[in-house]
Amino acid sequence: METGSIAVAVHENQDRITGVLAPVLTPFDANLAPDRKRFVAHCRWLLANGVSLAPFGTNSEANSLSLGERIDLLEALVASGIDPKRVMPGTGCCAFPETVKLTKHAVEQGCAGVLMLPPFYYKGVSDEGLFRSFAEVIERVADDRLRIYLYHIPPVSQVPIGLALIERLRERYPSVVVGIKDSSGEWSNTQAMIERFGGGGFDVFVGSETFLLANMRSGGVGAISATANVNPAAISTLYREWNDADADAKQARLDTVRKIFGQFPMIPAMKRAIAHWTHDDEWSRVRPPLVDLDSTASRRLIDELTAVQFAIARA
Amino acid sequence: METGSIAVAVHENQDRITGVLAPVLTPFDANLAPDRKRFVAHCRWLLANGVSLAPFGTNSEANSLSLGERIDLLEALVASGIDPKRVMPGTGCCAFPETVKLTKHAVEQGCAGVLMLPPFYYKGVSDEGLFRSFAEVIERVADDRLRIYLYHIPPVSQVPIGLALIERLRERYPSVVVGIKDSSGEWSNTQAMIERFGGGGFDVFVGSETFLLANMRSGGVGAISATANVNPAAISTLYREWNDADADAKQARLDTVRKIFGQFPMIPAMKRAIAHWTHDDEWSRVRPPLVDLDSTASRRLIDELTAVQFAIARA
Repeated sequence: METGSIAVAVHENQDRITGVLAPVLTPFDANLAPDRKRFVAHCRWLLANGVSLAPFGTNSEANSLSLGERIDLLEALVASGIDPKRVMPGTGCCAFPETVKLTKHAVEQGCAGVLMLPPFYYKGVSDEGLFRSFAEVIERVADDRLRIYLYHIPPVSQVPIGLALIERLRERYPSVVVGIKDSSGEWSNTQAMIERFGGGGFDVFVGSETFLLANMRSGGVGAISATANVNPAAISTLYREWNDADADAKQARLDTVRKIFGQFPMIPAMKRAIAHWTHDDEWSRVRPPLVDLDSTASRRLIDELTAVQFAIARA
Repeated sequence: METGSIAVAVHENQDRITGVLAPVLTPFDANLAPDRKRFVAHCRWLLANGVSLAPFGTNSEANSLSLGERIDLLEALVASGIDPKRVMPGTGCCAFPETVKLTKHAVEQGCAGVLMLPPFYYKGVSDEGLFRSFAEVIERVADDRLRIYLYHIPPVSQVPIGLALIERLRERYPSVVVGIKDSSGEWSNTQAMIERFGGGGFDVFVGSETFLLANMRSGGVGAISATANVNPAAISTLYREWNDADADAKQARLDTVRKIFGQFPMIPAMKRAIAHWTHDDEWSRVRPPLVDLDSTASRRLIDELTAVQFAIARA
């Protein structure tokens, strides 16, 4: 089993995934098909740099992949020998039969848990409707091994997961609904989640390393962050050493890098950076509706990253 | 071939679908599986009342169905003898391989066209990205018979289809991108579409019968409207007789009924009305994240509809 060069971070008495996870970027070949080989190689590099894997997230272009493509990539990953206990695939679709299918598959593959978007087509849906959506999936998957991490990302999904809904899910399914990724971008929201549910077996991940130090100091368990795809070692170091005296300086350094990527469309920018430093242009492809960076933006991105001594060191 | 009791409305010199279409409601059985028998029966009743079929739209809970369920229902419909030239299924998914699959299938089934949502997960995407999304589908379906009707429904998809994008698609694929359903709810937007693209082979449907008379008077070709599921005869009558002296009175009557449904969540309300007047409670089920009307709301809906002498007359 591949476990990476840095030990897996788990709760002392629990078999729970914590720490820094990357929403793994999905490389595409010239025909825009998912590139299994580059995907697995990227996963290995992330693990070797101390971060676990959250494939099929927003930054993975997961919703631009077919169900079959997602299943195939996860199987390729597990078949390569990577420990599924370090993997938390995204499985939330608009249609519950598809969420059930992906979730069952992830459980059968031995994954640590799944990161679940709410159904995101209808807007303004009620908490009752969202509760029924998650309940329908849980009841149909019907597996004691299932661990769900809710995925709160209102800027993209436009369907928020509020505190009242979490409370209801926790009450009904305490051993299944065990955490959340908060990509609201509002620290006050993360704080409220930790205050209300943290400590009681509910693990709060922030959706950006911008809030990693604050999250660790407040009782959160880590971050599932886009830029863990390009800056994994530094981010996972802060996670491990957040109690050290220089933690704030480390956080500031992470923020500098994140801010540069944040000036561009994030997914194309990260793919461009990997393509640049691995000398592998294949990596720059995205699926529509995303668009790869043009040459001017690409140059500016690399120049700005270079100016702050950032580089991706990859074997 | 089933053609309904009222002749199919087509352009004089074109084999194009026009008139009133219902985004066909999807009935579910006790296990929340799509109910083929009730679905086909509902389709037959709609056709007999003068409206054509746009299954797998927003009001069909299409994005709450799996790909396989959508394929299965369309095949059941065509196998039942219903003329596919009166059918415009929704096929737009977030992932282009899935849109390609559904679109190919619809073309192979002989459908008049497809109603295509843009990929709707990522928000704030560029026109370039949306153009590439539609282009990718068109190039991969690669079938001269393909007719795409764009689906502009920003209140739900949150991904608008603007005039510049339509222009670019029309320029590149004039024989494929042949129309739009405008569910913006803004008449000024529909007008702008007709002024810029109408008459040149681009068919503009309004997304609600509220704008049916205005659309016909301005050069549009019809409506694809939720409430065509419950009020098909009256809506299709206005479409055929929009030039008559009493057209405004007919429009006002349609508006009265629409307004009542609009006070409730539209999909559960329409299903409840069908369940009530067909004495078939099975019809009231929705899939999460939607929630069926509670008994108070149900009673209020039926009371208000009854008060304006509305009823669903069904064999």
